[in-house]
Amino acid sequence: MHTIRLSLPQQAYDIVIAPGGIAKLGELMSGLNLGKKVLLVSNSTVFQHYGGRAIVSLENAGFEVSSCNLPDGEQYKTLTSVEKLYNTALENRLERSSTMVALGGGVIGDMTGFAAATWLRGINFVQVPTTLLAMVDAAIGGKTGVNHPQGKNLIGAFYQPKLVLIDPQVLQTLPEREFRAGMAEVIKYGVIWDAELFAQMEACDRLDHFQYLSENLLQEILMRSCQAKVDVVSKDEKEAGLRAILNYGHTIGHAVESLTGYRVVNHGEAVAIGMVAAGQLAVNLGLWEQASQDRQLALIQKTGLPTKLPTGIDRDAIVDALQTDKKVKAGKVRFVLPTQMGVVKVTDQVSSQAIYQVLQRMYI
Amino acid sequence: MHTIRLSLPQQAYDIVIAPGGIAKLGELMSGLNLGKKVLLVSNSTVFQHYGGRAIVSLENAGFEVSSCNLPDGEQYKTLTSVEKLYNTALENRLERSSTMVALGGGVIGDMTGFAAATWLRGINFVQVPTTLLAMVDAAIGGKTGVNHPQGKNLIGAFYQPKLVLIDPQVLQTLPEREFRAGMAEVIKYGVIWDAELFAQMEACDRLDHFQYLSENLLQEILMRSCQAKVDVVSKDEKEAGLRAILNYGHTIGHAVESLTGYRVVNHGEAVAIGMVAAGQLAVNLGLWEQASQDRQLALIQKTGLPTKLPTGIDRDAIVDALQTDKKVKAGKVRFVLPTQMGVVKVTDQVSSQAIYQVLQRMYI
Ligand SMILES: NC(=O)c1ccc[n+]([C@@H]2O[C@H](COP(=O)([O-])OP(=O)(O)OC[C@H]3O[C@@H](n4cnc5c(N)ncnc54)[C@H](O)[C@@H]3O)[C@@H](O)[C@H]2O)c1
Ligand SMILES: NC(=O)c1ccc[n+]([C@@H]2O[C@H](COP(=O)([O-])OP(=O)(O)OC[C@H]3O[C@@H](n4cnc5c(N)ncnc54)[C@H](O)[C@@H]3O)[C@@H](O)[C@H]2O)c1
Ligand SMILES: [Zn+2]
Ligand SMILES: [Zn+2]
Repeated sequence: MHTIRLSLPQQAYDIVIAPGGIAKLGELMSGLNLGKKVLLVSNSTVFQHYGGRAIVSLENAGFEVSSCNLPDGEQYKTLTSVEKLYNTALENRLERSSTMVALGGGVIGDMTGFAAATWLRGINFVQVPTTLLAMVDAAIGGKTGVNHPQGKNLIGAFYQPKLVLIDPQVLQTLPEREFRAGMAEVIKYGVIWDAELFAQMEACDRLDHFQYLSENLLQEILMRSCQAKVDVVSKDEKEAGLRAILNYGHTIGHAVESLTGYRVVNHGEAVAIGMVAAGQLAVNLGLWEQASQDRQLALIQKTGLPTKLPTGIDRDAIVDALQTDKKVKAGKVRFVLPTQMGVVKVTDQVSSQAIYQVLQRMYI
Repeated sequence: MHTIRLSLPQQAYDIVIAPGGIAKLGELMSGLNLGKKVLLVSNSTVFQHYGGRAIVSLENAGFEVSSCNLPDGEQYKTLTSVEKLYNTALENRLERSSTMVALGGGVIGDMTGFAAATWLRGINFVQVPTTLLAMVDAAIGGKTGVNHPQGKNLIGAFYQPKLVLIDPQVLQTLPEREFRAGMAEVIKYGVIWDAELFAQMEACDRLDHFQYLSENLLQEILMRSCQAKVDVVSKDEKEAGLRAILNYGHTIGHAVESLTGYRVVNHGEAVAIGMVAAGQLAVNLGLWEQASQDRQLALIQKTGLPTKLPTGIDRDAIVDALQTDKKVKAGKVRFVLPTQMGVVKVTDQVSSQAIYQVLQRMYI
């Protein structure tokens, strides 16, 4: 069991990485001075595997548990689903001291967090992430929210959980493609923050399937990725500055995702493509060495993630889409560009022409 | 012009009381380091009187203004209205640095605040309250939110404005009944926090119409009421303890409001009734002197507010309704009871029998 503490000006909480940890959920929550009532939020995919174990653990620790499964899929990350949680909270008479527990990937975590943030103006919240992406990214740092019909994550709140419990064993049932999507974020941490993490992954023969990872490497990946996110978030909770570096690969990544209707390419795949593009931009602008970009490319390929743009989206569409992205500040597109392995800078000094040039070479 | 500063651990902002202040809105906002874009939110009742003036002031100060009127009425304080604000925010491409300005009563303020809290996970927010109730209560302290079909203010967030601008002159167009509703909260501050404010109102011959108040008394009422709320909120932003005293008169008040479908009795009237009930409870429990309760009764009557329960609601329904109230903690109903003029205590040691006894004497 490994614990990382995230300390913020107003609160602090633990991120616990514990194989088999779901069976200790109730015990871990007991120490947190929470009310008796817990609403466990999941979807039926995840719930059928881990819901029973979580409920037993909570009940053994004396909690009064109700549960609610939302439909599975990004297309259900909406206010309508959150309203369903409100109704369940009401039916079960949750109080201010009660807790919503998110058991699932980033979709469940984001919605549950937003519901917890806004029900009775904020009740307790615990994250039990079950995808690699949620473990290393979505569950940490307090960003919660839902999509607007016209844009992802436009509605939300900054709201921190009381505990994040990561049980690496649940990754055994995670579809391979979802695993790889999470690996994109892990590679991101290597490039923006932790060159040693990058090197450890480079040293591994195969990374494209979960079963190729040694228990030790998986532990390192989780610990170092969570630590990277914690380091950044604790310095900049509300995304005033530094936190922007977490968007490495996401600027073009988001454009690719949205242009393919969030279906053809998943988030991690889009981020992989976005990192390749950002890396190449950095090389072309003289900020990064080609050798580093080659290392990044090789690692992404080894993980089985794409490095080329999907057919059917053209460059103009991408450059247009960048303009409506949330990360636009005063009309300028902000890029996170690497300068050394483990170090990036944020800039809005990238011309559309430079973007076109890079994208042109990214078709198969 | 009188300024009260509300200082919280994470932020601080001014409450400015300035006759004719709406014409200075833009100027006052200029100093706050906000982005160029402003979305002015109001309803057509208020907008027709003050919308033009607000927009001119904002534009003169260099802001780019768009506006959105929501339908007028508590029944529209819903997620659906907030979604309309999200859509308008999207159409006008509001950015994180942009500002939503609420021009209206508590309904507009609460919804605009919630939309600002949750759009892009939080954009800037300014309150320009136009009812007495919003000036002395709703606009200050950062409680924002909307109603759930089954309960008031169940959905919301704590989210502080960057500025509260109070222009007392706008009260000239406020319907008398709304004015009196605000006076209920002012009397509340007298009883729970500021005996001097209470005495100043007692000294005035008539209080039942806005025109009877001298400019001086109005100024005192606004300053002292805002100061009372600021004192309490700055000691307890998130309602962990002290802030509960602001619910004086609201425990039974809310039950009365909800049982009459929020139509027959308005919020201030319900609070007036609730204060009479709470005062009598305190007397019966030996906490407060009958003489003080008589002073409270007299002041409420002088303001033209009701002191009796409306016909048609029975006591059982009220006691039942208390159980579903948000202020229920671990199944116990929490009451705020006066002990001296200007001092109250919070207790959950009130038996249903004691409540029945008091309510019985409150029918006409
Ligand atoms: N809040 C943040 O800071 C943040 C950061 C990154 C991403 N996100 C959000 O996270 C979401 C993506 O999250 P995600 O990638 O976890 O997707 P997801 O939640 O949709 O999960 C992916 C799929 O895996 C299934 N699944 C989850 N755990 C499983 C398990 N252990 N075994 C078997 N199946 C399992 C899910 O049911 C789903 O079908 C997006 O909405 C994104 O916006 C949020
Ligand atoms: N956030 C908080 O801390 C807090 C505190 C108390 C109450 N509230 C909320 O405030 C709401 C009640 O607010 P309210 O009493 O201001 O009601 P309101 O906003 O409905 O306004 C009352 C009426 O007066 C009209 N009006 C407003 N200003 C006017 C003016 N200057 N001239 C003419 N007409 C005007 C409005 O259009 C409306 O018809 C409730 O929803 C309540 O839950 C919130
Ligand atoms: Zn991501
Ligand atoms: Zn009130």
